Amino acid sequence: MDRFKDLLERLHTASDLERASAVLGWDQMTYMPAAGNAARGEQLATLAALWHREFTDPATGDLLQALEDDYQGRPQDDPQRALVRVTRRAYDKQTKLPQDLVAEMQRASAAAYEAWVAAREERRFALFAPAFRRLMQLSRESAEAIGYEQEPYDVLVDADEPGLTAERAAQLLEALKDGILPLVRQIAERTGRIDRSMLHQDYPYEAQWQAGIDAVTAFGFDFARGRQDVSIHPFTTSFGVDDVRITTNIDVQGFPGGFYSTLHEAGHGMYEQGLPAEWARTPLGQAISGGVHESQSRMWENLVGRSRAFWEYFLPTAKRYFPSQLAGVDVDAIYRAVNYSAPSLIRVDADEVTYNLHIAVRFEIERALLAGSLEPEDVPEAWSEKMRTYLGIVPPDDLSGALQDIHWTGGFGSFIGYSVGNVVSAQLWQGASRDLGDLDEMIRAGAFSPLLGWLRTNVHAVGSTHSTDEMLRRATGSPLTAQPYIDYIQKKYRAIYGL
Amino acid sequence: MDRFKDLLERLHTASDLERASAVLGWDQMTYMPAAGNAARGEQLATLAALWHREFTDPATGDLLQALEDDYQGRPQDDPQRALVRVTRRAYDKQTKLPQDLVAEMQRASAAAYEAWVAAREERRFALFAPAFRRLMQLSRESAEAIGYEQEPYDVLVDADEPGLTAERAAQLLEALKDGILPLVRQIAERTGRIDRSMLHQDYPYEAQWQAGIDAVTAFGFDFARGRQDVSIHPFTTSFGVDDVRITTNIDVQGFPGGFYSTLHEAGHGMYEQGLPAEWARTPLGQAISGGVHESQSRMWENLVGRSRAFWEYFLPTAKRYFPSQLAGVDVDAIYRAVNYSAPSLIRVDADEVTYNLHIAVRFEIERALLAGSLEPEDVPEAWSEKMRTYLGIVPPDDLSGALQDIHWTGGFGSFIGYSVGNVVSAQLWQGASRDLGDLDEMIRAGAFSPLLGWLRTNVHAVGSTHSTDEMLRRATGSPLTAQPYIDYIQKKYRAIYGL
Repeated sequence: MDRFKDLLERLHTASDLERASAVLGWDQMTYMPAAGNAARGEQLATLAALWHREFTDPATGDLLQALEDDYQGRPQDDPQRALVRVTRRAYDKQTKLPQDLVAEMQRASAAAYEAWVAAREERRFALFAPAFRRLMQLSRESAEAIGYEQEPYDVLVDADEPGLTAERAAQLLEALKDGILPLVRQIAERTGRIDRSMLHQDYPYEAQWQAGIDAVTAFGFDFARGRQDVSIHPFTTSFGVDDVRITTNIDVQGFPGGFYSTLHEAGHGMYEQGLPAEWARTPLGQAISGGVHESQSRMWENLVGRSRAFWEYFLPTAKRYFPSQLAGVDVDAIYRAVNYSAPSLIRVDADEVTYNLHIAVRFEIERALLAGSLEPEDVPEAWSEKMRTYLGIVPPDDLSGALQDIHWTGGFGSFIGYSVGNVVSAQLWQGASRDLGDLDEMIRAGAFSPLLGWLRTNVHAVGSTHSTDEMLRRATGSPLTAQPYIDYIQKKYRAIYGL
Repeated sequence: MDRFKDLLERLHTASDLERASAVLGWDQMTYMPAAGNAARGEQLATLAALWHREFTDPATGDLLQALEDDYQGRPQDDPQRALVRVTRRAYDKQTKLPQDLVAEMQRASAAAYEAWVAAREERRFALFAPAFRRLMQLSRESAEAIGYEQEPYDVLVDADEPGLTAERAAQLLEALKDGILPLVRQIAERTGRIDRSMLHQDYPYEAQWQAGIDAVTAFGFDFARGRQDVSIHPFTTSFGVDDVRITTNIDVQGFPGGFYSTLHEAGHGMYEQGLPAEWARTPLGQAISGGVHESQSRMWENLVGRSRAFWEYFLPTAKRYFPSQLAGVDVDAIYRAVNYSAPSLIRVDADEVTYNLHIAVRFEIERALLAGSLEPEDVPEAWSEKMRTYLGIVPPDDLSGALQDIHWTGGFGSFIGYSVGNVVSAQLWQGASRDLGDLDEMIRAGAFSPLLGWLRTNVHAVGSTHSTDEMLRRATGSPLTAQPYIDYIQKKYRAIYGL
């Protein structure tokens, strides 16, 4: 028992350092004067170094070893055993990577960022390619150091999505492509059928802010245990289950961009507010994966917030905030407008139908790069070819192509989480509908607590005791699968576009 | 040379941890939802423990020892030697205190805070006395552990005001009492001569906020390297010379409380923005003492901000913000109103004339307590007696008496810094006037940069290379002395009250 307490104390220290870094990061993105950036960088680097030293203390390794022996007879989901398992995973990942390689990755990443900024100026991926190649080589070295079964890319996919392999991720995307590509083509021929002009007007800042607050308060984001601020790129961060921060960014020349970013981040935020408090300050009190996190944001942004039922509930409120802008707009009109779908070049602007195709482009390029079957210099060509195949459009230059996302200045393997998030959100919706009955009816009546309660029990309170598959099996009866998402998209968009 | 670099790296790590704590503390007081308090407390405790472990690493002691030998031949104000000296001071203070005692102090302080809150409910110091006694005993133990020459209280005074002894502090307060007490009595008979009614009206929030921003922007607080937010109790904190945060608190039912708190904190803030960047992340890049820090806030709040010259400059601006409230108010009227003086019970509301008498009450009680000549239970009686003697008024209960300040839940020795601040501000004003000429004339013209520049050179850029006395000797020709402050008060208030 003392061993476990000892482990807990070590984990608490490491967690507090992570949370402190999160506070510094939040401030950096919200309130910090730009001049504070240099000192903030030093502070964050120091906290990261101390975190690494604390977390990778060999004494922790000894404790884990001893506790693994102690707990061998316990069931897999025994919380203490689960904590040791989850901690072991993180510990091995941190200790297997040589410190020199970690430092070199950081330098390469900083250099890649500089090169990316410069390349974007010229809109030419070629200027980014050398730094990108270096990062790719180091990522491969990392994968070798950690070890994999099938291919180096497995390690990078597994880092964000524990338990997922490159091959299984590829199958997931294949299923999504098979299920959605024909629909994309049919919709592309009918984009003129939806009128979005009412969204492109002046929408006052305060009203937009308050509309978002109203919606996510109704959803159940607890503002007594969190708050919303403003940042250039909206994000969610947590300093503990009782202090969760979301941000938004509002464009007064249109609706509902800022509104949906509030809904999206509040989905992340409610997950953080629902994590098991009894495992706070330990890896067990954290989200299962980036993809499961994204499932919560997508759930509230899309499955709830872009449903017809939601607009039946919310349109009267929206009209109070925007009486002139939404005069004469009925539920059907706003529902169709916020679900407009069309092939587009930029991932972050993509709709529910086309979004996963953007992920497929990136995932397939990453996998080929890591396997050595594609060279960094050839990325723009591969990009254009895939965009043409999946979306029927080609970027006019690399700025709206392979240079659009910042992710590749930091490494590989994180994009797949977005598709995992979409897929999981639909699976959970299906599971919740089975258990709770007609969710749309509840949403129409403004009753969001049954859904939130179901997510609290089946997803949030789990922490990372279970894997994504195990959580899904328990909550929905089946492991990660694309079919519910495909069914959801097909049904929703066939109706909208009269197909 | 490598030794010095090694020391610097260790100091940088410790400093980054302090700054990180400062960010967490700032957020706690400005934006954090109340529910976040428990987790924030854990995070701050972890950072403090890590800071202590880093800073008191025995290897740092070895380095200091070796560098002291290396630098013996260098002049005292050689920066590297100064850094070693200042670091040694802090290192000894941290290492001489047994960790058990530090932990016990923290527990006793937490208990004292609880007792203080409860005692304030009942307005009875007696409920606070037992916890207060415990804190006093531990403070004495700390003093014994660190060591002193004359009396235990020396250690506590020296902690905030390096180089100051209890005896010298007492002499300073005696001089202030001698110089000011007769004036207090004369003014008390004439308080009716000043009309403050124009200050007690509705003053809109936004206009008050902007008036404060305008004034301190003119003073030279750099909002590109800092910002102002709102907190219940205004404060200043720094995350680096390029990121200094001040806060204010505005009461819409009156002026100029929030305005002067902005001026006060901006004084602190400009000091932090002017500290030597080349010694950032080391003790040499910090303020000399709490008292010198306070001299900068008092300088801008009082010597500048409550001067007739300032209101000649600022009244037109104030009238733009408050056209109806200040209609018909001339410079003389506002100048007299913001300098209203009268004996009062609450230190934080005290004016320039009476302020130091409040400090004398506390200082003399603390000194007697530490010397054992006063028992905690007898504090209220001693308080009333001193208040009667110095200010001619007695608190109706302990809430407006010995329970009014939070300071005694944390220890002893910090009050004297306020008087040091007042005294130093007048000394520096005298020094600056000698070097620059008529400061009032500059202020009247809105030219604040000569004064700020002089403070930058003579105080801010010094960091903590010199002691308070040495800084003052170089800047003004004389060490810490009360006379300039007494002269300033006498001259200003005799004129205002026609004495």
